[in-house]
Amino acid sequence: MGIVVQKFGGTSVATADLIRRAAGRAVRAKEAGNHVVVVVSAQGKTTDELIALAHEISERPDPRELDQLVSTGEQISIALTAMAIHAAGHGAISFTAGQVGLITDSVHTKARIQGVDAQRIHDEFAKGNIVIVAGFQGVDAQQNVTTLGRGGSDTTAVALAAVLRADVCEIYTDVDGVFTADPRIVPAARKMDEIACDEMLELASLGAGVMHSRAVEFGKKYDIPIHVRSSLTDAPGTMILEEVTRMEAITVRGAALTKDLAKVTIRSVPDQPGVAARIFHQIAAAGVAVDDIIQNVSREGTTDVSFTVAADDLPALVETAEGLAKKLGAQDVVTDDGVSKVSVVGVGMRTHTGVAEKMFKALADAGVNIQMISTSEIKISCIIDRASAEKALRVVHEAFDLGSEASA
Amino acid sequence: MGIVVQKFGGTSVATADLIRRAAGRAVRAKEAGNHVVVVVSAQGKTTDELIALAHEISERPDPRELDQLVSTGEQISIALTAMAIHAAGHGAISFTAGQVGLITDSVHTKARIQGVDAQRIHDEFAKGNIVIVAGFQGVDAQQNVTTLGRGGSDTTAVALAAVLRADVCEIYTDVDGVFTADPRIVPAARKMDEIACDEMLELASLGAGVMHSRAVEFGKKYDIPIHVRSSLTDAPGTMILEEVTRMEAITVRGAALTKDLAKVTIRSVPDQPGVAARIFHQIAAAGVAVDDIIQNVSREGTTDVSFTVAADDLPALVETAEGLAKKLGAQDVVTDDGVSKVSVVGVGMRTHTGVAEKMFKALADAGVNIQMISTSEIKISCIIDRASAEKALRVVHEAFDLGSEASA
Repeated sequence: MGIVVQKFGGTSVATADLIRRAAGRAVRAKEAGNHVVVVVSAQGKTTDELIALAHEISERPDPRELDQLVSTGEQISIALTAMAIHAAGHGAISFTAGQVGLITDSVHTKARIQGVDAQRIHDEFAKGNIVIVAGFQGVDAQQNVTTLGRGGSDTTAVALAAVLRADVCEIYTDVDGVFTADPRIVPAARKMDEIACDEMLELASLGAGVMHSRAVEFGKKYDIPIHVRSSLTDAPGTMILEEVTRMEAITVRGAALTKDLAKVTIRSVPDQPGVAARIFHQIAAAGVAVDDIIQNVSREGTTDVSFTVAADDLPALVETAEGLAKKLGAQDVVTDDGVSKVSVVGVGMRTHTGVAEKMFKALADAGVNIQMISTSEIKISCIIDRASAEKALRVVHEAFDLGSEASA
Repeated sequence: MGIVVQKFGGTSVATADLIRRAAGRAVRAKEAGNHVVVVVSAQGKTTDELIALAHEISERPDPRELDQLVSTGEQISIALTAMAIHAAGHGAISFTAGQVGLITDSVHTKARIQGVDAQRIHDEFAKGNIVIVAGFQGVDAQQNVTTLGRGGSDTTAVALAAVLRADVCEIYTDVDGVFTADPRIVPAARKMDEIACDEMLELASLGAGVMHSRAVEFGKKYDIPIHVRSSLTDAPGTMILEEVTRMEAITVRGAALTKDLAKVTIRSVPDQPGVAARIFHQIAAAGVAVDDIIQNVSREGTTDVSFTVAADDLPALVETAEGLAKKLGAQDVVTDDGVSKVSVVGVGMRTHTGVAEKMFKALADAGVNIQMISTSEIKISCIIDRASAEKALRVVHEAFDLGSEASA
């Protein structure tokens, strides 16, 4: 028998009717001859409401207690989903992370999965049950409830698919699949039928918003085909696949925007071995995830070290950065919380030239000033002023003709 | 150091302000030099709202999934309470039943506690933390979430007090203590300063509503003084104590009403050994808890077997009762879902006479017809028509002069 993991996000289980619809999909997969695991998120705005409750009590709630609190959102969803499958005449059982042995480290609100005990799921498969698992949550070795951070339910689904060696992990969402750019910003954006894991990884980490990068990483690492599709239709969505050769024929697959970034520059840092390590060790210790890092060649024995972070994280960081600048004998710290990042992604870049020039020219023609540039093998990113962000995405999308079928 | 267990019901944690108030009480007990455990119920109407969600999906939700669902209410409360204690500058940690090893049997929605692992609580005491435990819930040996049924949070609190050998278990509620009768019905009712466990047991099971009988049983079995008191004032409430000799000087301590009962009579049952056992085995198998059973001497080889159940349970029972009547060769089944039970309770009854006569006369004088009578060593109950229920309680309360201090 095949094994299918289906994940339904918060908007796909927001009401009793939507839960019934999700349950119906699980039942159809079961009736088609598969073992089925369903991973669900908290209903609609439940997580936000729970966080608001916490903030009524405390401005800075303890992370362990916050996880204990918000994890109830998914627990509600799993019980209701199991009931809906029962009502449709099929066997189902719901599991919290603790019950299914989904073990994480103890980093509350941003925990990482260490393992899942698949035996309890296989036992329920043997009884003919559909298994419902709470997304987004885990427990550490002491049974403290943890949460996996943004996009955590995707990670739960793909991790379960990996442990169970599932045939496919279906991510049901409120969009039709992965687009060449955010269609709310770029009307010409087009749904892709398939995309390489590596491209999706860059897009996910760039904030394309459809799936969390950690989930895509899991899928790549354990070779799990991920199908991102709409919970509202039966139309196929986008398959996230291991790379296939013909993908290389396309230079740029998609464009993405990360809107709310802040830029930090520590100016005139003495250029000595180990300086970068010291800086980013301190930043990590402050609990802030760094987006891109840019350091150019040194001039007169000093260099400017720049990096970007989520705009929200800037206040928590300024003191650390200024302390660092002082200790390192740097000149000062300059910050700007009004920047965005526009990027293009494609595995074909590895074998094609001229991509960067085309992107820079498109931005220049539109009067968008490029403040910083960083590239990887399959990605080019430009930091720009936030006021130009949406225009920048549109002109780049157009420059690479991403909206036309010919580009596919 | 002393150990105090404090339990706050749903009305005592319904808002952020009330949670802060409950947290303040826990902190005061800690500052007075005690180790403190706080047991909380779900906020306000949360449990009802969760049950309503289930009923949107299914008319008869699976009991396991219902427990999985409703247990989230207490989980929300414990996290918020811990945050409130943190905000007050003290250490606190919250535990679900699973985390604190509160193990029950597997009877969902009506589970019974089998044990609590006190070690994790003692570990937190050693760190100086106040320990918050979710009331009403347990886990079975397979980590399935169970709930303890009505009044379950009281049971959780007293069970923890027993395991920890606490000095006192304080039950905070929205009334001032235990009254001689329900003050909403009997304006002359008076708060008692103390009451014997046995009396409280009869009152709890009779529906006085302040505390669940299972919790009082635990308190009696493990000799835990229980202090029922208001969460709104610092005034002392009612101590539920092991019996003291002077209590016997008072014949009747309180009067109670169980309002919504149904009466079932299986008429002309052949009077053979084992018949009663068969009847009540079947009723129990139907999942219905029987209140009182009354069987009088037989006439002409047959007898009438009557019993009372919660009025809500009657529909689930009728088929079983009629099937039984047929199998046993009884005449028929007569039911009435419009009865109530008025009772008087007092350990002094054991050594006093004339209590029953006084009660029957009071009812007769008020024109209340007694349909059935049942008594225990310390209790006399009369089944009456529901229309006369409140009047009956008032006249009985007055007949025994329960409202005057002299009766105490």
